[in-house]
Amino acid sequence: MPSALASLPERILLGPGPSNVHPRVMRALSAPVVGHLDPAFISVMEELKGLLRKVFCTKNEFAVPLSGTGSAGMEAALANVIEPADSVIVCINGVFGTRMKEIAERCGANVVTVEAPWGSSIDAGDVERALKATPGVKLVAFVHAETSTGVLQPVDDICRLAHEHGALILADAVTSLGGAPVLTDDWGLDIVYSGTQKCLSCPPGLAPVTFNERALDVIRRRKTKVQSWYLDATMLMRYWGEERVYHHTAPISMNYALCEALRLVLEEGLEARWKRHVRNHRALVAGIEAMGLSMAVNDAVRAPMLNAVVVPDGIDEKRVRRSMLDGMNVEIGAGLGPLAGKIWRIGLMGYSSKPENVLTCLSALNAALREQGKRCPNGLNAAIDAFQMD
Amino acid sequence: MPSALASLPERILLGPGPSNVHPRVMRALSAPVVGHLDPAFISVMEELKGLLRKVFCTKNEFAVPLSGTGSAGMEAALANVIEPADSVIVCINGVFGTRMKEIAERCGANVVTVEAPWGSSIDAGDVERALKATPGVKLVAFVHAETSTGVLQPVDDICRLAHEHGALILADAVTSLGGAPVLTDDWGLDIVYSGTQKCLSCPPGLAPVTFNERALDVIRRRKTKVQSWYLDATMLMRYWGEERVYHHTAPISMNYALCEALRLVLEEGLEARWKRHVRNHRALVAGIEAMGLSMAVNDAVRAPMLNAVVVPDGIDEKRVRRSMLDGMNVEIGAGLGPLAGKIWRIGLMGYSSKPENVLTCLSALNAALREQGKRCPNGLNAAIDAFQMD
Repeated sequence: MPSALASLPERILLGPGPSNVHPRVMRALSAPVVGHLDPAFISVMEELKGLLRKVFCTKNEFAVPLSGTGSAGMEAALANVIEPADSVIVCINGVFGTRMKEIAERCGANVVTVEAPWGSSIDAGDVERALKATPGVKLVAFVHAETSTGVLQPVDDICRLAHEHGALILADAVTSLGGAPVLTDDWGLDIVYSGTQKCLSCPPGLAPVTFNERALDVIRRRKTKVQSWYLDATMLMRYWGEERVYHHTAPISMNYALCEALRLVLEEGLEARWKRHVRNHRALVAGIEAMGLSMAVNDAVRAPMLNAVVVPDGIDEKRVRRSMLDGMNVEIGAGLGPLAGKIWRIGLMGYSSKPENVLTCLSALNAALREQGKRCPNGLNAAIDAFQMD
Repeated sequence: MPSALASLPERILLGPGPSNVHPRVMRALSAPVVGHLDPAFISVMEELKGLLRKVFCTKNEFAVPLSGTGSAGMEAALANVIEPADSVIVCINGVFGTRMKEIAERCGANVVTVEAPWGSSIDAGDVERALKATPGVKLVAFVHAETSTGVLQPVDDICRLAHEHGALILADAVTSLGGAPVLTDDWGLDIVYSGTQKCLSCPPGLAPVTFNERALDVIRRRKTKVQSWYLDATMLMRYWGEERVYHHTAPISMNYALCEALRLVLEEGLEARWKRHVRNHRALVAGIEAMGLSMAVNDAVRAPMLNAVVVPDGIDEKRVRRSMLDGMNVEIGAGLGPLAGKIWRIGLMGYSSKPENVLTCLSALNAALREQGKRCPNGLNAAIDAFQMD
């Protein structure tokens, strides 16, 4: 029987991740595997730490890729600082805030939630009220770019409030890192984690994380062991630090790929990359609106790399996605939870965030809507005009 | 500054893993990334489950690669079945048994250990005594091929005893799977996990696991949630099963690579592959002994893929390894724990287990010893004779 591998299509990946992978990252992925304690790999590890510090905009000593996907990063971020009965505030306005609550509870936390409707941002005033109402909060956790809705959370007030109340602040930057500013040190973020397959445009499989000294102190002062051995930051520090104490065998090839992906981010420059994401996002929005469709998220809090588009009445949204995928090899994402069937999620992340993809996406969406009898105005000129406004 | 990626050497990987990767697996690794819910990826997932069942020699429905390395497999295997205060017997005769105890304790288990000296196998009589002395043991865990010592554990009696006492039996097959028989169903193993970078010769990064119905029933009847969300088998089953409920983004590229690696295992045939590992192991042992060196593990319980060789008196073992690596690009492994400085670990795993590597390893070891003034007899003819005895 022929393998499923023999018929893998080449997709234009405009869903909620993975995004398309740069050819240089693909070449790095297939570089010769060496041992996880080989001096050649240790050089790659050192380079990775330096690159991650730059991309996270931090001087933190501890900035490493964990050997699991973004969700492993989430679990590591929470499990390392939470001990049973700790009070934790989790901000929820989508799938990933909900997941943080679930994981924090499995760590034994007393979780207080601050909620906002899916598609809105968290109100800092609500965070302040929760902090005032809950004695001794150890940690406030929020999602920077909520992949399930396309909301980019304003950060300043939440960080300030958490620190004023003596709590650590933890940010999920899975979808934002490399596509929008994640200013770990300037914002005072204590713990940040991300994934490789969004705006870093590396295949999925690793979770870059960083902990500052304040967070590490909390970990060092734990009374109980971290419940996950695999994700225990104190042990990972000894493997990634100068001691090189064997912990587990790092995913060698994926680390090569991430190293090259981060090099590409810095060659482009963080500022330039953030601007590119905004430019392509604006062009897509201009095209979508010119087609007579509407965005699901208020302009002020839209994440540039994840565009939530409202499904028009009478349209079978799944058939649209399937038609775009089968007919044009364009992947876009579905809504999740309360937004299932109501929105599409169009990702313009990392290497996938480019003008030609904006135009292809608008065209393919137009064609798929036409199959269901919905004839939209052509959004292409509006998108092209938006590109030229820059 | 040039990247560390630019100077990655091509090694002959004869350490405790990773092993060398077949060119076909490398090509699969760099196939186009698609979305984790793309029909094309779902076909790969289905193929993977079928291939894993064959390689694990099981009819278990649940046979999937977890999105972490072998140690994540260990944590998943233990954390899914253990609830706080459960009694668990862990067999310890090396690093990985020790690690299982550590993880089981972090899951809240009451751990009873059955120990044997590092380099010896576990005595089934000791397991029986522990089972009799401990009421209501839920799980007996052992390491099939102890990577830190090169011992292959006889399985039959331990499995039978565990079941006679109503306990589940869990095997660490990280190093054995694909290189020696792992007869999940015939032996009655309830839970087995492995890694990709040993005898499957895929880069590190995934952990194939299988749970039988008996183990799944225990998981379904849990009173508490699995403490790890990331490794929760009940949620992973829904993603890998027909429901396709999104859990986390699978490491797409690594799953392609594993799929191709498993295809190679089955193209060769399990029996033929096991025989190849034994043949190359015997030739290496013949060469080592002809050189006047000795094996650290008794012939009756030697793992064919991991050869522990005693470091001769007066030899700086680290300098030998460094000389082989720098001079010949041959990687062999050091001893760990109480065996540090006392043994070398020579892996002949998967694609690395081939006659030319046996001869290269013997020659490179001979050359490195000669640098320290130790002139050994040439072991090559003894190895070549051993090949021809087959």
